Amino acid sequence: MASQADLVEKHRATIEQAIEAWRSRTFFAHWAEVPSGKVYGESAAADGKARFDAQLGKPFDRLLHDQAQSWHGEEESPYGFALGISYPVHSPDVLVANAQRAQRAWSALTPWERAAVLVEALQQSAAIFFELAHATQHTTGQGFVMAFQASGPHAFDRALEAIAAGVWTQEAFATSADWVKPLGKATVRLSKRYRIRPRGVNVTIGCSTFPVWNSVPGMFASLVTGAATIAKAHPKVVYPIALVVGALQQALDRLGFNPHLVQLAVPTPYEPMTQALVGTDGVGTVDYTGSAAFGDQLERFCAEHGIVCFTEKSGVNPVLVESVESLDAALENLAFSICLYSSQMCTAPQNIFVPAAGVAERSSGRTVPLEEFIARCVSAIDALVQNEKVGPGTLGAIQSPATLDRIERARTLGVPILRDSAPIVQPEYPNARTATPLVLRGDTRLRAQYEHEWFGPIAFVVPVASFEHGLEEMTSSVRRCGVLSTLVYTTDGSLQSAAEEALLAAGAPVAFNFSGPVWINQSAAFSDFHGTAATRAGNASFTDVAFVASRYSVVGTRCGE
Amino acid sequence: MASQADLVEKHRATIEQAIEAWRSRTFFAHWAEVPSGKVYGESAAADGKARFDAQLGKPFDRLLHDQAQSWHGEEESPYGFALGISYPVHSPDVLVANAQRAQRAWSALTPWERAAVLVEALQQSAAIFFELAHATQHTTGQGFVMAFQASGPHAFDRALEAIAAGVWTQEAFATSADWVKPLGKATVRLSKRYRIRPRGVNVTIGCSTFPVWNSVPGMFASLVTGAATIAKAHPKVVYPIALVVGALQQALDRLGFNPHLVQLAVPTPYEPMTQALVGTDGVGTVDYTGSAAFGDQLERFCAEHGIVCFTEKSGVNPVLVESVESLDAALENLAFSICLYSSQMCTAPQNIFVPAAGVAERSSGRTVPLEEFIARCVSAIDALVQNEKVGPGTLGAIQSPATLDRIERARTLGVPILRDSAPIVQPEYPNARTATPLVLRGDTRLRAQYEHEWFGPIAFVVPVASFEHGLEEMTSSVRRCGVLSTLVYTTDGSLQSAAEEALLAAGAPVAFNFSGPVWINQSAAFSDFHGTAATRAGNASFTDVAFVASRYSVVGTRCGE
Repeated sequence: MASQADLVEKHRATIEQAIEAWRSRTFFAHWAEVPSGKVYGESAAADGKARFDAQLGKPFDRLLHDQAQSWHGEEESPYGFALGISYPVHSPDVLVANAQRAQRAWSALTPWERAAVLVEALQQSAAIFFELAHATQHTTGQGFVMAFQASGPHAFDRALEAIAAGVWTQEAFATSADWVKPLGKATVRLSKRYRIRPRGVNVTIGCSTFPVWNSVPGMFASLVTGAATIAKAHPKVVYPIALVVGALQQALDRLGFNPHLVQLAVPTPYEPMTQALVGTDGVGTVDYTGSAAFGDQLERFCAEHGIVCFTEKSGVNPVLVESVESLDAALENLAFSICLYSSQMCTAPQNIFVPAAGVAERSSGRTVPLEEFIARCVSAIDALVQNEKVGPGTLGAIQSPATLDRIERARTLGVPILRDSAPIVQPEYPNARTATPLVLRGDTRLRAQYEHEWFGPIAFVVPVASFEHGLEEMTSSVRRCGVLSTLVYTTDGSLQSAAEEALLAAGAPVAFNFSGPVWINQSAAFSDFHGTAATRAGNASFTDVAFVASRYSVVGTRCGE
Repeated sequence: MASQADLVEKHRATIEQAIEAWRSRTFFAHWAEVPSGKVYGESAAADGKARFDAQLGKPFDRLLHDQAQSWHGEEESPYGFALGISYPVHSPDVLVANAQRAQRAWSALTPWERAAVLVEALQQSAAIFFELAHATQHTTGQGFVMAFQASGPHAFDRALEAIAAGVWTQEAFATSADWVKPLGKATVRLSKRYRIRPRGVNVTIGCSTFPVWNSVPGMFASLVTGAATIAKAHPKVVYPIALVVGALQQALDRLGFNPHLVQLAVPTPYEPMTQALVGTDGVGTVDYTGSAAFGDQLERFCAEHGIVCFTEKSGVNPVLVESVESLDAALENLAFSICLYSSQMCTAPQNIFVPAAGVAERSSGRTVPLEEFIARCVSAIDALVQNEKVGPGTLGAIQSPATLDRIERARTLGVPILRDSAPIVQPEYPNARTATPLVLRGDTRLRAQYEHEWFGPIAFVVPVASFEHGLEEMTSSVRRCGVLSTLVYTTDGSLQSAAEEALLAAGAPVAFNFSGPVWINQSAAFSDFHGTAATRAGNASFTDVAFVASRYSVVGTRCGE
């Protein structure tokens, strides 16, 4: 068992590098994103697959809990088979009591000690990446490579980012001071101490599409600031976060810490968990990813009960295409964004505003008429969908049957269908639930049709009178609906400035002219803030200073002489 | 008109010193707390008095507003005369629209530029300190010296502290980055920018007892992070904050900035302002000092409307006296705390727990029986009350008639009166509304009698079975009622540690063995956090990182190549 001081020495450079990257916003990745044997060990892929296969149909027994109160599981792969895994169920009061016990000694460590223990626990837990990729693929419907990256290296980098943010922020203040105040010729002296006190146990409410990536920032921001965390899984997507919690618990246990610092809350049809957990005395912070309706309700409940609540709710993401260097390059990028994981991403583009007069293309020197733009956009999507090598893996499967219903609702809206949705063959999985993008034609006079989140592979091309009109539609949509991403194509510097100012004022993050191998749906740890906290799409931002600072108090002690 | 760069150079050292003090928590004061001609100019005192006298009975015309919609004023000095001052009234929508206009250019400055302008504005505004002292005395009822310190140097230091906190926190992130991600043998490159975006216009709801000290932290934390602020005054206590707003506006105007960055909202019987202001579109943050009932309601409203709300609500402050070095020294300190401004302070001690077996005094080697403790405590209060030189100035006058009613309610609770309340003569003011401390005997079996805030000069001595019992009563009171200060007297190191751990766990700030010229009611800028944000007494702490970080977003822009 390594001492805390040893662990701090072992991980000091990593943590310092992470803090430096988080502050400078430059590229940084601690875990390689390629699911490669060269990085993760030649047998890692096969081992992970074997562990996944062995887990199917069995109780998940890798969590360090006392006797479970019951076992429950209801997961089915969007690729068409039941997982048959059951998970140990504990009541909210047991989970919170466990967390409070674990939190006591943990909150007395220094931020650096906590950070070093957490980095060590993450490094040990990275051994699960391949099994985690299968678990993620077969609960969320993501393609394998995306599942590997999103739940593995990208999520772990977000966790490390939260640790870095927590260390930097907690270092704001000295831990003691000799306070000497001059009073005329005399002085008065007090000796003072300052201690970090977490607001309380953290509850992180996971979502069904990014069960690890969206959960670990809140969990690690809480852990590094002295709290224990309880990860409440989505009932249909338990396996990925159960794996992460299990691996962290085992690492903490090996390191001599109470494994109940991280726990899993499993919802059942009889106890959906979220409200009961959040209502349990001792809970101080809540992190939530999910629908706006439930998120709004949760924010209210937390405000009434003195709980700090961080939310990422749904938004509507607009794109505006005014002019491009190369339309093919732009459309290839945009088509990929729309196809990626069948748009089951909070950052996926939905409404594409295009001037009715067409899009200027610099490379050809011509203005591409609107109808040609639409045709080429549809072709770009078709090309990706029909590409047998990358299409199925890019689109993946549809997590929830409700998304298929939503596509059907959109198809029967009565608006022109520019590209129809259809199933896509997933070679190994004949029963996969799939759907290619549905592209509809929107009309700004019938805004209500497209101005709410159509979660899933549903996009609208919406003609606008001009760039200015499109920008006004974008910013007013941001104000009404909230947003997680915006994208503007223009080669005109003054239009770019105007768009940046208007979208910044509305609280939206902005991207310009994406046409290479980076997509608007992506958000890079250490460099991109995920969520601005400034629109209806949520009050949290991964990972700004407020995301960690609001989780704890600095409590002072003053001693007279 | 100085350039921004000149101002940054002029105030760089002050801001750096302030940041250093804020981080190291050592003694720091930028403005001298002594109302001395040597510091503030030989004529400053007389000039301030003359300006005060000249203002009485007249419209307050020192605010840089457009034509007022109406004029209103209803202030009366607790020392027994009407002020007869009227203030310009503007509707909430006019104030918020003004603020939004002013905010646009302001939020585009760098944090250092904003900080330098604000320090310059504060320095220029310090010229009002003496008039401000009279204005504060004759609205709040504070004694003159306290009024000078609380609204002048101590408040301005809290404002400077908020500026320092804002600069440090906003420097977390680079303002641009060249993001280069390796992709195998190739790389992908994005150019990124990061900009500070305030959540929206700030509304600061002032209180009747500390109209400046409690308001400037939120106002300056908002200003330094790019927002405009509207100070909503208490209807009976407008003059002090009107003076501050007027001085800041004039300084901003001289410096070439829109004076509507800081505005005054004057409530009238027809428009109490708070709800209308907070409900106006464009408001992003609210700071509130006041009652728990209204504060709870405001927190809920803000949660429902996506507004970040910082509160300081009422608490109940306990003291535990187990053992002392010198009982006289301890009681002199405690008596002063109870008498200071007639306990009209959120940090004043209320419930004094004392072991029934008495208090051990080290210097004499004897245990002082409970009844003797009570008698000497009453004597210490009497000695101060009857001290003609310092008594009247220390106690001051009673801000609200409701406090006299409260004293009457407490007197008729039916519990033993250990010391009765009575008026105290304020030599220059025969009609002053005054009251000396009422001391009652509490009983832990009848906790409801003393376990709510008895705002004003009302204290309870509550016998407990032991130190442990007293500590348990303290911590459970903290959990039930919230707290702004706690004070423990013990000469036993292990008891001190036990108390520190238990009170920290409950979220309370702690003080031990105060017996010199520092009192538990005091909270020193740069060193003491005011409010822990961890109890029912409020969610804000002057001035921790969360107090500034939650006021703005960092919004990113990504540009493809």
